Amino acid sequence: MSDPRLESLRAAAPGLRLATAPDELLHYGRDWTRRWTPAPLAVALPATVDEVQAVLRWASAEGVAVVPSGGRTGLSGGAVAANGELVLSLERMRRVLAFDPVDRTLTVEAGAPLETVQEAARQHGLQYPVDFASRGSCTIGGNIATNAGGIRVLRYGNTREWVAGLKLVTASGELLDLNRGLVKNSSGYDLRHLAIASEGTLGVVVEATLKLAPPPPPVATLLLALPSFEVLMQVFQALRGRLALEAFEFFTGTCLRHVVAHGAQAPFEREYPYYVVLDAAAEGPDDERLLEAFGHCAEQGWVEDGVVAQSQAQAAQLWRLREGITEALAPHLPYKNDVAVRVSAMPAFLAEAQALLAAEYPEFEVAWFGHIGDGNLHINVLKPTELGQEAFVARCAEVTAHLAGLVERHGGTISAEHGIGLVKKPYLGCTRSAAEIGIMRALRAALDPAGILNPGKLFDPPER
Amino acid sequence: MSDPRLESLRAAAPGLRLATAPDELLHYGRDWTRRWTPAPLAVALPATVDEVQAVLRWASAEGVAVVPSGGRTGLSGGAVAANGELVLSLERMRRVLAFDPVDRTLTVEAGAPLETVQEAARQHGLQYPVDFASRGSCTIGGNIATNAGGIRVLRYGNTREWVAGLKLVTASGELLDLNRGLVKNSSGYDLRHLAIASEGTLGVVVEATLKLAPPPPPVATLLLALPSFEVLMQVFQALRGRLALEAFEFFTGTCLRHVVAHGAQAPFEREYPYYVVLDAAAEGPDDERLLEAFGHCAEQGWVEDGVVAQSQAQAAQLWRLREGITEALAPHLPYKNDVAVRVSAMPAFLAEAQALLAAEYPEFEVAWFGHIGDGNLHINVLKPTELGQEAFVARCAEVTAHLAGLVERHGGTISAEHGIGLVKKPYLGCTRSAAEIGIMRALRAALDPAGILNPGKLFDPPER
Repeated sequence: MSDPRLESLRAAAPGLRLATAPDELLHYGRDWTRRWTPAPLAVALPATVDEVQAVLRWASAEGVAVVPSGGRTGLSGGAVAANGELVLSLERMRRVLAFDPVDRTLTVEAGAPLETVQEAARQHGLQYPVDFASRGSCTIGGNIATNAGGIRVLRYGNTREWVAGLKLVTASGELLDLNRGLVKNSSGYDLRHLAIASEGTLGVVVEATLKLAPPPPPVATLLLALPSFEVLMQVFQALRGRLALEAFEFFTGTCLRHVVAHGAQAPFEREYPYYVVLDAAAEGPDDERLLEAFGHCAEQGWVEDGVVAQSQAQAAQLWRLREGITEALAPHLPYKNDVAVRVSAMPAFLAEAQALLAAEYPEFEVAWFGHIGDGNLHINVLKPTELGQEAFVARCAEVTAHLAGLVERHGGTISAEHGIGLVKKPYLGCTRSAAEIGIMRALRAALDPAGILNPGKLFDPPER
Repeated sequence: MSDPRLESLRAAAPGLRLATAPDELLHYGRDWTRRWTPAPLAVALPATVDEVQAVLRWASAEGVAVVPSGGRTGLSGGAVAANGELVLSLERMRRVLAFDPVDRTLTVEAGAPLETVQEAARQHGLQYPVDFASRGSCTIGGNIATNAGGIRVLRYGNTREWVAGLKLVTASGELLDLNRGLVKNSSGYDLRHLAIASEGTLGVVVEATLKLAPPPPPVATLLLALPSFEVLMQVFQALRGRLALEAFEFFTGTCLRHVVAHGAQAPFEREYPYYVVLDAAAEGPDDERLLEAFGHCAEQGWVEDGVVAQSQAQAAQLWRLREGITEALAPHLPYKNDVAVRVSAMPAFLAEAQALLAAEYPEFEVAWFGHIGDGNLHINVLKPTELGQEAFVARCAEVTAHLAGLVERHGGTISAEHGIGLVKKPYLGCTRSAAEIGIMRALRAALDPAGILNPGKLFDPPER
């Protein structure tokens, strides 16, 4: 604790908990990416909004960079502190503060894990419908900072749709109480929406008022085996017109092979090119509309094999084939791309992307999966055992540059739900125009003139 | 056409249609408010995005203020040009450009009337669910500029929820193609959402890609007569839990009296304090769940009278009681307030507001109606016949100041869906904090350094 800046921080925020031990700096200085060596100045662990304000006032005055930090489950390096920044962890601010049955809202501190929010909603007979696999570790503040999506966007939208109010501390330490849970509010610029997906560069989320939905309907879970992506799109179109889809996820035979090798049970006797796992509102596995819709797809010759879960346990088993992919791939140190195009552009994009990867990088195994209804493809490039990690990452950066060009030609985005952070920063120009990036820079400068909030993330700060 | 600035505009945009006749200046210089005397410099009527860009480049260079103009059905003066501004009317840019059946989107020029959009969606077997009474005149660009709401927000949300892409021309004439129809896109600040509800102060909307929804379910329409607002809230809660509500609107006996005086048929033999008209998903007027829900409310003693529409024609008749209010009140030159609080705060707010108005302004007749599910109350103060218009407006400004204070205490907004424009500008500080207004000013200055876009709307420009 010899750094004089920390002494001045102690003076500015007397009760603030600060962590400076090497293992703490390592732990709080990184997210799920492993490409940067954590090197924060220290870790501030405020317990109150007042303390967050004091930290930011101090940081603006001293010109110290601050990295807001939630569950650090990010995949784009948005929460990495590798340049002597102060990590501002919200993890001690994790309380559920209020539930309102009339407004159907839940107010929570930003450090509350997603799972805590989901559980609190369930206890009140409602649901918080944003969901993804890192639910136990990721925090609402982090979800808001990246506008997190997940497996139920098709039906419920992204995090953005569920934020009715947001308390945000600005770089200067001002507390903004944005929208305050109102359903309708046309009173100037919606700074709440500007803050969502800003990855901690415009302010620190300290509290959120979240909308809740009625509980999900009873669903049936299906797993379908399909011969091609074109057919997959036709099945999606046909089922969307006939059923109320709650989720519709696809993955390739490659993904399934890895999940099965990782311990899951193979669902069919042979392997198919594509699989879909879906939840559709239904009275049970024998629901008439469900069987009619499934029958229609079979009649068209689209479905090569399929199974309707007959129990909750079997449904969970089918979903594990999709949700287990990330874990099953992890030992292969995958290089992750998270792209999206318009749903209608998916077949052409996927065909071109597969051709590109096969032609340029025949030695790489690529695992594809994603959210068809959202146009979101997760492309995981697996590290060949014989290739060193550094060479692999360098090679993947080339892959990403090629892919980014392809995404640009198809009008898509290089980040559907992971955010830009450090990882996608070089490719931002493939998704946002120079004019847009210029405006983003200007907005950031207007809100944080000292440039202390998560500098270097999203885009580089201007030369000083 | 002697103004030298118009000559320079002609040179900058050779084919641009310009209108300068006195009746045209009058027509295009005002919206549905009638408190300002129109005095525009001229009216530009571009036919292409290129022309819009040329106008804005010229305006930024010359320092000429520009008022973007849609259907001019606004109620807050956002489209008023009373200070020698150039009106930039989008009314010639009204084409439906594209429909995509896979993405379920409709791409339209900003000057397309809401009704045109609704009709185009219906032709494709889908719906554009934002709806309100000015649908034939208002434009999509104007809807986006105010984040218009209407009678179906309860079920479908505001305009914001339906904008998948936005083309915006900035003050400097840059064309931004924002979000481009993507469902998922976490690539930095969402400038689309910043532009929505910015009332033409951050850019001119020239094109929008709108999401469409599946067609609405068959509904039953009910009219209920209720003894009090507390009961009304209980009915809302009970029905929301039992039925899929598509709309739930209330109005007072005063409103009904005016609508009936204006030619509508009285629904019941006597008058009641409150009425609700609602649409709920139902197989028909005898739908079991509907009758069960209605029966529950009757058993509780909440409903004093009620009717279920037995035909489309009767449903239309019941809805006319609600939708005809604005027109029926118009001859009384009502002073309109459009406030919202959280739904849970409505009973306390309404009680205090009614007490305030009764105590301070016993001579005013006040018509209340609105959208319970959104917390949105329309408060129309009717001009007593004997009071002059000017004295009435002055008196109403006092009313509004009192109401704004009340709204502030209840955590609400002085504008739920009309926008701020000129009318609400003095009260913005009751809804947005000084810090928020400071940030809005900074953002506006960053995007429009010359201050040409709709100056004086939302908040005053800084002193120069």
